[in-house]
Amino acid sequence: MRQRLRELGFSIGHLPTGRYNAITDVPGVRVGHTTLIEGDGPLVVGEGPVRTGVTAVLPHDDIFHNRVIAGSFVLNGAGEVSGLTQVAEWGLLETPILLTNTLAVGKVSDAAVKWMTRHFPGIGTDYDVIIPLVGECDDSWLNDTVGRHVRSEHVYRAIEQASDGPVREGSVGAGTGLVTCDFKSGIGTSSRRVTLGQNDAVRTHTLGVLVQSNFGVMRSLRIDGVPVGELLDPAMTANRRLKNAGSIIVIVATDAPLLSSQLVRLCKRAALGIGRVGSFAAHGSGEIIVGFSTANKVPRLGTQSSRDFTMTTSIEVLLDEACDGLYEAIVECTEEAIINSLCMADQMTGPAGHVAPALPLDRLAPILRRARDATDTARI
Amino acid sequence: MRQRLRELGFSIGHLPTGRYNAITDVPGVRVGHTTLIEGDGPLVVGEGPVRTGVTAVLPHDDIFHNRVIAGSFVLNGAGEVSGLTQVAEWGLLETPILLTNTLAVGKVSDAAVKWMTRHFPGIGTDYDVIIPLVGECDDSWLNDTVGRHVRSEHVYRAIEQASDGPVREGSVGAGTGLVTCDFKSGIGTSSRRVTLGQNDAVRTHTLGVLVQSNFGVMRSLRIDGVPVGELLDPAMTANRRLKNAGSIIVIVATDAPLLSSQLVRLCKRAALGIGRVGSFAAHGSGEIIVGFSTANKVPRLGTQSSRDFTMTTSIEVLLDEACDGLYEAIVECTEEAIINSLCMADQMTGPAGHVAPALPLDRLAPILRRARDATDTARI
Amino acid sequence: MRQRLRELGFSIGHLPTGRYNAITDVPGVRVGHTTLIEGDGPLVVGEGPVRTGVTAVLPHDDIFHNRVIAGSFVLNGAGEVSGLTQVAEWGLLETPILLTNTLAVGKVSDAAVKWMTRHFPGIGTDYDVIIPLVGECDDSWLNDTVGRHVRSEHVYRAIEQASDGPVREGSVGAGTGLVTCDFKSGIGTSSRRVTLGQNDAVRTHTLGVLVQSNFGVMRSLRIDGVPVGELLDPAMTANRRLKNAGSIIVIVATDAPLLSSQLVRLCKRAALGIGRVGSFAAHGSGEIIVGFSTANKVPRLGTQSSRDFTMTTSIEVLLDEACDGLYEAIVECTEEAIINSLCMADQMTGPAGHVAPALPLDRLAPILRRARDATDTARI
Amino acid sequence: MRQRLRELGFSIGHLPTGRYNAITDVPGVRVGHTTLIEGDGPLVVGEGPVRTGVTAVLPHDDIFHNRVIAGSFVLNGAGEVSGLTQVAEWGLLETPILLTNTLAVGKVSDAAVKWMTRHFPGIGTDYDVIIPLVGECDDSWLNDTVGRHVRSEHVYRAIEQASDGPVREGSVGAGTGLVTCDFKSGIGTSSRRVTLGQNDAVRTHTLGVLVQSNFGVMRSLRIDGVPVGELLDPAMTANRRLKNAGSIIVIVATDAPLLSSQLVRLCKRAALGIGRVGSFAAHGSGEIIVGFSTANKVPRLGTQSSRDFTMTTSIEVLLDEACDGLYEAIVECTEEAIINSLCMADQMTGPAGHVAPALPLDRLAPILRRARDATDTARI
Repeated sequence: MRQRLRELGFSIGHLPTGRYNAITDVPGVRVGHTTLIEGDGPLVVGEGPVRTGVTAVLPHDDIFHNRVIAGSFVLNGAGEVSGLTQVAEWGLLETPILLTNTLAVGKVSDAAVKWMTRHFPGIGTDYDVIIPLVGECDDSWLNDTVGRHVRSEHVYRAIEQASDGPVREGSVGAGTGLVTCDFKSGIGTSSRRVTLGQNDAVRTHTLGVLVQSNFGVMRSLRIDGVPVGELLDPAMTANRRLKNAGSIIVIVATDAPLLSSQLVRLCKRAALGIGRVGSFAAHGSGEIIVGFSTANKVPRLGTQSSRDFTMTTSIEVLLDEACDGLYEAIVECTEEAIINSLCMADQMTGPAGHVAPALPLDRLAPILRRARDATDTARI
Repeated sequence: MRQRLRELGFSIGHLPTGRYNAITDVPGVRVGHTTLIEGDGPLVVGEGPVRTGVTAVLPHDDIFHNRVIAGSFVLNGAGEVSGLTQVAEWGLLETPILLTNTLAVGKVSDAAVKWMTRHFPGIGTDYDVIIPLVGECDDSWLNDTVGRHVRSEHVYRAIEQASDGPVREGSVGAGTGLVTCDFKSGIGTSSRRVTLGQNDAVRTHTLGVLVQSNFGVMRSLRIDGVPVGELLDPAMTANRRLKNAGSIIVIVATDAPLLSSQLVRLCKRAALGIGRVGSFAAHGSGEIIVGFSTANKVPRLGTQSSRDFTMTTSIEVLLDEACDGLYEAIVECTEEAIINSLCMADQMTGPAGHVAPALPLDRLAPILRRARDATDTARI
Repeated sequence: MRQRLRELGFSIGHLPTGRYNAITDVPGVRVGHTTLIEGDGPLVVGEGPVRTGVTAVLPHDDIFHNRVIAGSFVLNGAGEVSGLTQVAEWGLLETPILLTNTLAVGKVSDAAVKWMTRHFPGIGTDYDVIIPLVGECDDSWLNDTVGRHVRSEHVYRAIEQASDGPVREGSVGAGTGLVTCDFKSGIGTSSRRVTLGQNDAVRTHTLGVLVQSNFGVMRSLRIDGVPVGELLDPAMTANRRLKNAGSIIVIVATDAPLLSSQLVRLCKRAALGIGRVGSFAAHGSGEIIVGFSTANKVPRLGTQSSRDFTMTTSIEVLLDEACDGLYEAIVECTEEAIINSLCMADQMTGPAGHVAPALPLDRLAPILRRARDATDTARI
Repeated sequence: MRQRLRELGFSIGHLPTGRYNAITDVPGVRVGHTTLIEGDGPLVVGEGPVRTGVTAVLPHDDIFHNRVIAGSFVLNGAGEVSGLTQVAEWGLLETPILLTNTLAVGKVSDAAVKWMTRHFPGIGTDYDVIIPLVGECDDSWLNDTVGRHVRSEHVYRAIEQASDGPVREGSVGAGTGLVTCDFKSGIGTSSRRVTLGQNDAVRTHTLGVLVQSNFGVMRSLRIDGVPVGELLDPAMTANRRLKNAGSIIVIVATDAPLLSSQLVRLCKRAALGIGRVGSFAAHGSGEIIVGFSTANKVPRLGTQSSRDFTMTTSIEVLLDEACDGLYEAIVECTEEAIINSLCMADQMTGPAGHVAPALPLDRLAPILRRARDATDTARI
């Protein structure tokens, strides 16, 4: 049975988690998965085996009319989050964020457009058109990617069944066919509660991270600094071809009132969390981070009203000097979310005898325990 | 009858054009359009009227196996060229460039993936997956954009019928439903021959630009510095609602041997050409420039061969000090391509009585002639 | 006698100017110059001739304790504004902006540090250290740059004598030894009043630009679209060696309440104004734009109080949808400020017989008049 | 007695070091320090105590005439490397790199200009002017920074006494007054040998890193993943005020033939090495990385020859697909260089009783040993 890192008795960092230790701990945020697992045996393009899916992250109920402030950072751009250019320019998110496999980005973007135009009448007439945000990882080692099994209904379902509360992790949704550090991984999540200020000025904010994790090689895997990848049996991963490729998409949510430029800075720090797991951001690995704050909603203006709107708005902003706690939180969350994506994923067999083994928790626990004991001894 | 700017007897700048004054003057570059014009009358979503299409720009015959060096610049990111993140990171272009309407980006990207996986077997198995480059402008004022009339076959056709030689301009392909400075526009192109060095070290290179032009308001339109927009009858454009939105995608090709970082610098200068036509890069206008050089091909490496390939390559590079001629050329080309997109587009009626008038060439020619006469008089 | 463009009877664009048509029309902004002109004859390094200086732009009285929000854009980075990295990261300006010649940047930065530490006790102890903003253009064609004639007192004087009201232009301060489009130029300024909204929501803001202008070649000079550079006698500039080099630093001030990310977007549009004068941003030309908004002051936090400060602040922000008027204004202002830098500069002789002729206003006026007449005729 | 990490019996990563485990292992690279330590007792501005200096990194003997290709990355821009804008634009380094304290950047830049104009006649006449690269960290907790004790001679000496071979580390040169994770630090260095390819195509390159390290708090310090900072006695650092500020400048040298865009990507990975030591890139911490490759020299063009030079050049370039080894190397080097800066620095007393304790090696060694033992046990 798979267990999250904390269920195994370990954790990353010092800050307390939110209730579910998930991105959904940020009030309003919902996550939905459509998981596609079908067929076995050799690869027959168009037939399978299928190991892929769609994951939707919804910042709040009506992201179209009440946009949220957003920012992003590209650690290594060998990947795609379509729609990112507009997020970078306007600092706004106005659609759900969708994740899928690389060759399905177009189809998922198309489905998102269909879903948006049906649910928000007036796009393209009363309102400007929209550009959905769709990120990807390459699952072609375990999935018949070229067979293109993601359909529009899968996208609708991921959006419509999105819920708050606990988030399924591992081989679900857009994480179904992914591999991290040569082990089966997929979706992972984690959250932190950050208390800023003191005395009368105390405020507590939540920051949550969801990763679609698909990068790295076993040798470099570290968990909380422990060189786990060096200690596991290399034979476990002998089946996997050597690939430079890979990717990780990191979605960051917070209810701290941040500007777009502050979210960019926050997203940059997620890269440090990826690095702590052992990544050196390989040439072929697309490491892209997208963040949003739910604190200030930016109402959409109809094209008709463009001459009547109020010219200015007053917004609450967290001071940059107060952001360090969030920076610590995002490094911790990103690392723990990646580890959760590994801890929660079972072994999976794909086409052509490709096997992605599960991270062996029975081997992992004693390694982490021994390291903790050594640390505890030193502490005394 | 519509005529290009030079057919009217005018031109932009000093440098000589290539044979066709088109992006196809860069050897190997081909352009194809699929134009969709159907129906009339009021807007019925899903039925029409349809005024849209697809334009394909192919850097050379086998862009997949022999990638070209690429770069880009975003003047205002209120738009989308999906796939741009990877171009920015790797400095490589490995798919055709496709242009369409905003809400069709996903569908066109999906079709491009299908086309690529059929024509280049091994994607996702022997080779890494690919991320197509798909740019867009919003044609929803003249087109039933929400009705989503672009289909995969339209994409295939634009790619497969792409040819060298003269390029159709105005209301064709991805330019079918576009409006620039309140006049009907669409696709435009222009090229320049640039001679670098002197004496024994003379070299001549070609630079070509193709624009998908959809920005601005009549009042600010300038042609070769002449404030044409102020001199035309404002009544012409009374039918058009005031919109901040718009966009222009600029595709730049050259056979000068440029690195990715040099192409980024080159693309930045295209922005100055957009500015000369009167753009102030409105908040809602997505101004994105993508450029490539056909001089150095970068062979694709199969995943199997990843351990055997040669580690270094020797490439010819134009010195930065020699690039000024190309900078002048791109400013001239971008301006002239935009003007050509206006000069070559006929009046078009869209849904709901929306009418985009043609730029009135019979009014334009005397204005430009009078300005030239004033200049010529001053010259004496 | 030199005259500004409007004194000659011409102007750029449509928007009304502020009282002085100067950056000082933005309330609180002050400008000071120290002009160094000494000696004649051949270049003797360390002796002269001296044709250089320092210009100071002060956003308001106490920029150290009440920082202003700032942003920047680099069109071509072949130049330097030291301190720009921190402006880009924090979006704050906390020192005066100083301009000088390239080889004096270090000395001026050093003098600014001395001035700041004397006037604001506690830097480095109670407060963090500061990094002054110092921009430059290369005046080595007219000035004994290597002789290094700028001293700390010159910096102090420029700061301390800074005043509001009319701004001296042409061969003053950091503009003393500069050349634009082969004519003597230097400092220029211009401003616009921008009215946003309508009915009850009307607001008027001021935007001002000051340029240190030192770029381009005569052939490409345009004024309000008229190809003036082609119409003047090339013999005028025969004395000048061909140089790719040059630069322009653009300082932008506004009282519109903009965030840092909005100021970055605003600064980008200044590049379009540079382009309208004829620039193609030559390889060796450093085109850097720095902007600030005086609307929201950001108080400096002492290091002691770092645990007690309020965690959030409420700020007023102009909506992005309302920024188009400012975008038009900055394009107009940048162009007019550059032209003013030319119109207001007298001929100057530097070392080794180097002569930078003044833009011949008696030739210019009829050219512009003829172009205007042609336009007016077309208008009828 | 202080010892480098490897002298203590530990190391970071898997790759072999160069001969001296220093940036000077890259052939041609030299390092020089001028260390200023004078006075004791309370802070008297202008008198002392003085704990500062200058460090010079010279890419090769004649960086002016034969420039090297360079790139940079800013993890957090709360700091300054003046001259960086031009490096980013041109991808060239044409002066020595100098490091010092924040308030001395101007003075050091000025001295560098004096040194360059004396040693390379023709600057500003036969050749373009130059903009020196000067980075900084804030040493005001241990140094009378406001007293401004760095003089031009100190800069000349650092440049002229620069040598290859072993590099002094800890409290030397620009590292004299620095503190990392609440312990005395300063300059640190490390190098790696990277073997790329296999069989007949094997090549070995050297990559070296030098850091000026001044960031972080004890609690977050990690060495090779071991949470050392949690295990040391917090009382050790009780004397130090809590500061967000800090900084780290990372200089990267390699003889691998990299383009500027590749060096930018390489520099980005150094950020991951900073993160592994425990940094979350605090708001007030300036983390800036500058890298250069010595493989391709770019000759300087005189202004007279601007019309005669060869238009193109042929350069050898490492394929991006081959860069992963360098990415691993830079993460390892950056981490080890930071640790060396701590291991090699003795306790230092500054003004006002400020004491920066040395990292206690006698406590550190058993902690690292215990962690290694735990790992070794797990390995079996």
